[in-house]
Amino acid sequence: MNNDLNTAEYFIKGILAGDISILSRAITLVESTKEEHQDLAGKVIDGVINHTGKSFRLGITGVPGVGKSTFIESFGIELVNNCHRLAVLAIDPSSQKSKGSILGDKTRMEKLSAHPRAYIRPSPSSGTLGGVTRNTFETILLCEAAGFDFIIVETVGVGQSEIAVSQMTDFFLLLMLAGAGDELQGIKRGIMEMADALLITKADGNNLQKAKNAKTEYAHALHLFPPSDSGWIPKTDICSSINNEGIKETLSIIEEYKRLATTNGYFKKKREQQLSNWLHQSISDMLMEKFYNHPSIKTELDKIEKGIGDKKINPYRIAADLISMWKN
Amino acid sequence: MNNDLNTAEYFIKGILAGDISILSRAITLVESTKEEHQDLAGKVIDGVINHTGKSFRLGITGVPGVGKSTFIESFGIELVNNCHRLAVLAIDPSSQKSKGSILGDKTRMEKLSAHPRAYIRPSPSSGTLGGVTRNTFETILLCEAAGFDFIIVETVGVGQSEIAVSQMTDFFLLLMLAGAGDELQGIKRGIMEMADALLITKADGNNLQKAKNAKTEYAHALHLFPPSDSGWIPKTDICSSINNEGIKETLSIIEEYKRLATTNGYFKKKREQQLSNWLHQSISDMLMEKFYNHPSIKTELDKIEKGIGDKKINPYRIAADLISMWKN
Repeated sequence: MNNDLNTAEYFIKGILAGDISILSRAITLVESTKEEHQDLAGKVIDGVINHTGKSFRLGITGVPGVGKSTFIESFGIELVNNCHRLAVLAIDPSSQKSKGSILGDKTRMEKLSAHPRAYIRPSPSSGTLGGVTRNTFETILLCEAAGFDFIIVETVGVGQSEIAVSQMTDFFLLLMLAGAGDELQGIKRGIMEMADALLITKADGNNLQKAKNAKTEYAHALHLFPPSDSGWIPKTDICSSINNEGIKETLSIIEEYKRLATTNGYFKKKREQQLSNWLHQSISDMLMEKFYNHPSIKTELDKIEKGIGDKKINPYRIAADLISMWKN
Repeated sequence: MNNDLNTAEYFIKGILAGDISILSRAITLVESTKEEHQDLAGKVIDGVINHTGKSFRLGITGVPGVGKSTFIESFGIELVNNCHRLAVLAIDPSSQKSKGSILGDKTRMEKLSAHPRAYIRPSPSSGTLGGVTRNTFETILLCEAAGFDFIIVETVGVGQSEIAVSQMTDFFLLLMLAGAGDELQGIKRGIMEMADALLITKADGNNLQKAKNAKTEYAHALHLFPPSDSGWIPKTDICSSINNEGIKETLSIIEEYKRLATTNGYFKKKREQQLSNWLHQSISDMLMEKFYNHPSIKTELDKIEKGIGDKKINPYRIAADLISMWKN
């Protein structure tokens, strides 16, 4: 249509001016798989890159039912009341039905989504994990350029996306339910180790004592892990989002972390490491994509994988053969 | 020299006949970085591949000083007394001085190294982790072809090699010391989660009560993790290698696991998954090697990495640029 509305220049200006509808359209470009959209998105990001990096990035995860939306609603209101400009990004590569659930999220985050200093944006659920995390990372950059100084990246605590999220955020918050028996039910191995803080939700009514017990239990378990490179010892706390209890305290924990990590230089170091990781990860992803999408590689690999189990194979020999086939 | 001694045929026949000196020479070929040796090694492995896979593969790790050699000496004697043919492979990519320490190992494993049904072989410490693990995986195959039905892969519990070892073995045994205070000191995050059994060593003399306490502590911590796909709940026990206590019990634990995993089909499934993982890992490793070893890629990347921190970058854009540079 009007070509002026589709130039990189137009997007860059709009984003830097904090125009939310232009920001939203730019994120749609980032998420598009069409090559011309990707090209344009790349130019837009190049154009705003020097205005990125200034937000605090918070990763939040927890199993379905833990009350992520309700927590983010309460916590987000606390943030905007503290004059933060908040963007909430949801990432859920595993679910085809998240389109529905994110609409649901928006409805549940009623006050937050209506607030002028808040912006709620789901990542699309289609595509590979690599694609979704790339979209999310670039969306963070766009939101920062548009002036958001606090970014929440939300994911579901049941898959691999947590690792990706912990690698693009400054602080990783794990929400948990107090439960009987196995306290870690439903949480994948390893996620607990990545957490900078562990928050027991729904600590109200009959559930309060259970939540307090779980807090003690988790604090003990976290204590068994060695401290991370930041020198930060993960904190455990309880909260009730509906009663707005433990919300300010959670923000205090995060602020305490930020002070520590800024003072000892870990904050900057971690960001640099993350960038370097993403660079190498992107190289790896793109190379793999080109390799695995080659038609004759697809056919060959399919045959080989079906044979595993009946036939003994030396994986190194097969890899070498496939790669030389691809190169020629 | 004599060309007959250097044909694939010669090696294949010798290995399948269980000739230890020919096996040793074949492992040296596998470890060599020379291209003609690699070619020959590949042919040898192709020739014996149908005779591999029949051993039980046990991974053992633990920090320096935990008593790995002493344990393997006692445990290995138990195995050979049970008519197993045992190969012990050591992997230590981090240490330049392991050549010395492995000679030390052999001296400490005095009875075992002299036993006709045992074979002790270090992996060289030079090279990348990828290279060392590849060597170890191919060495396992060669040892199996030579008739060893129990393979121990030993590594030091301080680095990334544990993940590799757990991916090439059927059972992962973590040796730990009972210590005061932080029980997990020195053990990297995540290693404990991979363990199928956790054995507290040096449970003798003044240390016995401490070891018993640690066992309780660890059993509690392991209980917090969800069960693995095998349906196996990790076991905790104590042992004294010098008093030969807890050694038979360790073997019983492993045999119990083997029965469970064989019966429920997990053993076969895990082996197939491992092969498939190694195949994709090898493809990835080899592609990366070709990419990163390209001279102009090296120069460019070096410049970019030095700039991170001062300059904002979009990792995806840079990755795309570098790859198209490499392809043209």
